[in-house]
Order: sequence, then C-alpha cells, then structure tokens
Amino acid sequence: MDTMQAVWLENGELTYRRDAPIPRVPPGEALVKIRRAGICSTDLELVKGYYPFTGIPGHEFVGDIVDCPDRPERVGQRVVGEINAPCGICTACVSGRPRHCPHRTVLGIVNRNGAFAEYLTLPTGNLIRVPDAVSDAAAVFVEPLAAALQIQQQNPIRPTDRVLVLGAGRLGQLIAQAITGTGCALQVAARHPVQRRLLERRQIPWIDEAQVRQRYYDIVIDATGTAAGFDAARRAVRPAGTIVVKSTYKGELGIDLSALVVDEITVVGSRCGPFAPALRLLEKGIVDPTFLMADLYPLSNAAAAFNRAKEPGVLKVVFVPYG
Amino acid sequence: MDTMQAVWLENGELTYRRDAPIPRVPPGEALVKIRRAGICSTDLELVKGYYPFTGIPGHEFVGDIVDCPDRPERVGQRVVGEINAPCGICTACVSGRPRHCPHRTVLGIVNRNGAFAEYLTLPTGNLIRVPDAVSDAAAVFVEPLAAALQIQQQNPIRPTDRVLVLGAGRLGQLIAQAITGTGCALQVAARHPVQRRLLERRQIPWIDEAQVRQRYYDIVIDATGTAAGFDAARRAVRPAGTIVVKSTYKGELGIDLSALVVDEITVVGSRCGPFAPALRLLEKGIVDPTFLMADLYPLSNAAAAFNRAKEPGVLKVVFVPYG
Repeated sequence: MDTMQAVWLENGELTYRRDAPIPRVPPGEALVKIRRAGICSTDLELVKGYYPFTGIPGHEFVGDIVDCPDRPERVGQRVVGEINAPCGICTACVSGRPRHCPHRTVLGIVNRNGAFAEYLTLPTGNLIRVPDAVSDAAAVFVEPLAAALQIQQQNPIRPTDRVLVLGAGRLGQLIAQAITGTGCALQVAARHPVQRRLLERRQIPWIDEAQVRQRYYDIVIDATGTAAGFDAARRAVRPAGTIVVKSTYKGELGIDLSALVVDEITVVGSRCGPFAPALRLLEKGIVDPTFLMADLYPLSNAAAAFNRAKEPGVLKVVFVPYG
Repeated sequence: MDTMQAVWLENGELTYRRDAPIPRVPPGEALVKIRRAGICSTDLELVKGYYPFTGIPGHEFVGDIVDCPDRPERVGQRVVGEINAPCGICTACVSGRPRHCPHRTVLGIVNRNGAFAEYLTLPTGNLIRVPDAVSDAAAVFVEPLAAALQIQQQNPIRPTDRVLVLGAGRLGQLIAQAITGTGCALQVAARHPVQRRLLERRQIPWIDEAQVRQRYYDIVIDATGTAAGFDAARRAVRPAGTIVVKSTYKGELGIDLSALVVDEITVVGSRCGPFAPALRLLEKGIVDPTFLMADLYPLSNAAAAFNRAKEPGVLKVVFVPYG
C-alpha cells in the first residue's frame, strides 16, 4: 500500500505519521494532492475535545486533482473544496440545505479524513476550480472567506447599517474585508497591535474594546471565539438589532432571554458559506487575505504549527506538505 | 380632587383603592375612560418582581376618549392604545423604532400608570379608533393580538413553512389564530384539555408535547412563558431554522451557543406589535378571540382576578371597571 505523510488526531493528541495510507478513491469522489492547508480555530477546538474526532484534521486547502474516475477530464485542475459531503437525498439536501444534511461527513471534522496530509478525497461535486488569477496563498483562504460571506447570505447588510466586528483574528479579518464592499459603517474591535496594523493596511477602521459604543450598532458580529464575545455583542447591539455568532467553543453560556425579547434582538448562528462568491472576491482582488498568513510549516512540524496557531493575535498558520 | 377606583402595585403587593386620583391630562395626551382591561402574563410577572414597577398595572384595554385638549373632536371615540409612549426625537424614534425608544414610558409597565383603573392617559397619537364591527369583548385583545402579529412583522412566514407553536395559553391561542391565515403547516403543542378544545373550535391542529417531532419545524414559536420552552424549541427546530421567543420570565438560561452556530439557528426575540393589522383581522372576523375570555371581574375583586389568571390553563381574565 502506498503511504503518505499526515497529521493524526486521537484522544486530543496530535501525531505526525509518515506511513498513513494514501486514501482509495470512493465512487463519485476524486483524489486531491494538497498544496497548502490552513489551521483554523475549529482545528484548535478539535484538539481541545470540542468534537470527538479521530483521524486527519484540516478542512482549509488548495490542491490538484490527481485521480477522478468519474470525471477524468478534471485531472490536473487546481481546486478548493466545499467541506460538507451530504447524502444528497434527505429532506435537508433536496430543500437546498445540503450543508445541514444530518448524514453528512465533514472534511477533517466529522467522519472524514482532512487536509493535514499529502492527499485527501472529496466528492467530485465538492471540488471547485480555482481561477488562474488566484494564487495558492490566497486560495487556501477560500473556505474561511466563504464562512465570512455566510453572514451576508443569512442576513443582508445594508449600506446604511452600523456594523461592529468583535475580534480581529483570522476570521474577523476576513469578515471585515468581505463586509467593506457593502459600504456600511464598519468598525472592528481589535485587541492586538498586529491585528490593528493588518486592518489599517486595508483602510478598515479599528477601535479598542473600551471604545465600543453601547446599544448602538445595527449588526454585531462575534468573531472572538470566546464566550465573552456574546456578552460584549449583547451590550453593543441596539434594540431590534442583530447579533451574528461565529464563535464555537465548548460549554454553555447563561443568557437573559427575556431581555432579548424586550429588546427584540435577533441572534443568528452562522457557520459555513458559499465558495463561488469567495473565489469571485479573491479573483477581483476585492478581498486580499495573503498578508494574513503568519507562517508556513511542513507536516513533520505539526506540533510547532499548532502551538504557533494558538498564540494570541497570531494569524493564519499554513501547512505545505511539499515544502 | 376627583378620585377613581384603581388597582395599585407596590413591592409586589396588589391593593384595591377607591381614592386614587383621576389623572390630569398632560400636554399632547388624552383621558380615556376604561371599558375593559385584560390581565396578561406580563402583569403576573410584574407582581412577581420581574420589573420594579410601582403604580397601576394593566396595558390591554378598550375605552372611550373623554377629554382630549389638543384634538377635542376625538372626544367620544372608542379606542385601543399602543402601550409604548416614545420621546419622538431620539435615534430609535426617528429611525422608525419608537417602540424601542430608550426614554419611553410603557403603560402599566414602565413609569406610566396603566389600565386597571377607571381612567388612564396616553398620548393622543397612541389611541386608535376601534371600528364599530369590533366589540369591546374583541377589542380588549388588540394589544396581545398585535404582539402575536409582531412575529410575522419580524419574520415573514411562508405558506410552505412547517410552524410549531409551543404553548396554547392566552398568547399561544392568538398566535395560532393569526398564523392560520398564512396557509402554513401549523401545529400547536397544547397541554390542557380546555386549550385543545379552544384550538379545535378554530380547526387548528393541536398535538401533545410528546408528539413534537425533533429537528423538524422551519419555525418554532415559544409562547410557553417558561424557561423550558426554549429547550423544547431548540429540539424541535430544524437546522437553519428559526426560533421566535415570546416568553419573558426572570433569570438566565444556559444555552449551547456553539450548537446554535453549527446548526445555524436564528433566535428572534419578539415583543409588542402593530395595532392596525390586529384591528383589521378582528374587523374581518379572521381572528376571533372572544371565546378566549375566562371571566369578568370588577376592580374591587382584583386579588381574586389575579389568582384566577394564575391558574394553569386559564385564559383571559378581564376587568370591567363599570361592571
């Protein structure tokens, strides 16, 4: 059996393997050789035990199709991949919500090996060709940029809206860039100097957390990744406003639901988003995520890569299987 | 000074007064002589200390304008009244959200004496004429029916939606009747036999709580008035569905926000609503709340009226100041 390098997660422990089997290609799927794969906060939460995942983590990638039995003409295409692999026949799937299919597997998250390896497989229909104008350095951000765009997919932002993004880490930066195009009055609460400089590079106004106005913003987006984010969002949103929650973390949060009723707040949970518009924004240069990359690592240095990604204020850490 | 009968709430205690002063009419307001006033769950929560209100409670009423210095031609009109009295000049007011004015008073709830009395005052603009075809018995339900319609004002219901109303008390019955007109696939989880019979009278399908399908409904409306309602709604709503919360009660609820993110649930807090459409539905007989009335009481029997309203499964208890 042919083998490959991979990062393996089991019982909250990451190990580097030289001898992982190269996956066989199931019917309807394609084999992708990975160029780059990014570490996301969800990966850090997986290691902490947020989900009981055993296998190869990683769900942000760009790579090349090297085997595609049902669509051989696609071999050689450079692609990114929608991470949810739905059943295609249940109510959620046929109602246009395949990303909520209860039988889905999710790349590197639920019952499907992921992208921190030399190869992965995904259904052919999940793989989307990357335009030549989009570099590998940019394409590895397509999945989180799609997640950022899901905010507007669920809750259109109007040009006159006052919008606050809480948190200027990996996802917060992409959200801020994606929202800028609406023309809304955007502010980003950024904690770390490096985060503030990155926002300045895109002329996005940042403020200190202490400067956040209370009961003021039409829409507040919690991209802090922490429980404290919701409380801050609750204070900042105006009555009859909307809080979009992007943070996932372990545990419950105490919420005064009656106050949400009296103030008629809408809370929107938001997860994965559409890839095609993300690729359009990258192709046109409206969003430029490339300077958000912190470091490149080989798979053999997985432990160091994960430690780096955990540092406060650190941006995108990316694996390069073929250095 | 002329006096009137009134129910007085102070430190969680209700007393009946014969000698309350008849309110003077402030500039821009009108004096209303009350025909009927209904007891709402919010009144019961006020007595429990949900808000620190001291004064005359009551915010559901129908009455006659008996003094109106700035619009004398309105004297004699039979009216209902929007309960929020906004400042008219703040950002919320000029942005079309006067019911969220931070300086507002609220009839019988915040810094304004209410309807469990012989007279009340409200800004003239808050008073809406009741069409002749709408009886007093129906008109006293305009305020809670408007609150029911606020659900659709915030979150349009489509004809193909599967909608579950949790709770078939006073508000749940009105919500169910108001929603029926959309043609949606509606079910109401009703606990008490009397509630089920009232739903049957309007051909609204009820189910037992044990029959509620899990992760199934597009929209779930929590009208239980209890913390348990949200948990039940969370189990019943499908991924990417919406929970509308109508319940207010004291205290915080532990919520797994990350699960809301993964399932992309939208939670909508919903409070007061528009009076004009409520009057239209009553005038056309599309909603008939009159058989939801449990009992009529004189103000002098306030303690008994409140005790009656607290009984499980009991419907609308109404004061008739002039019996």
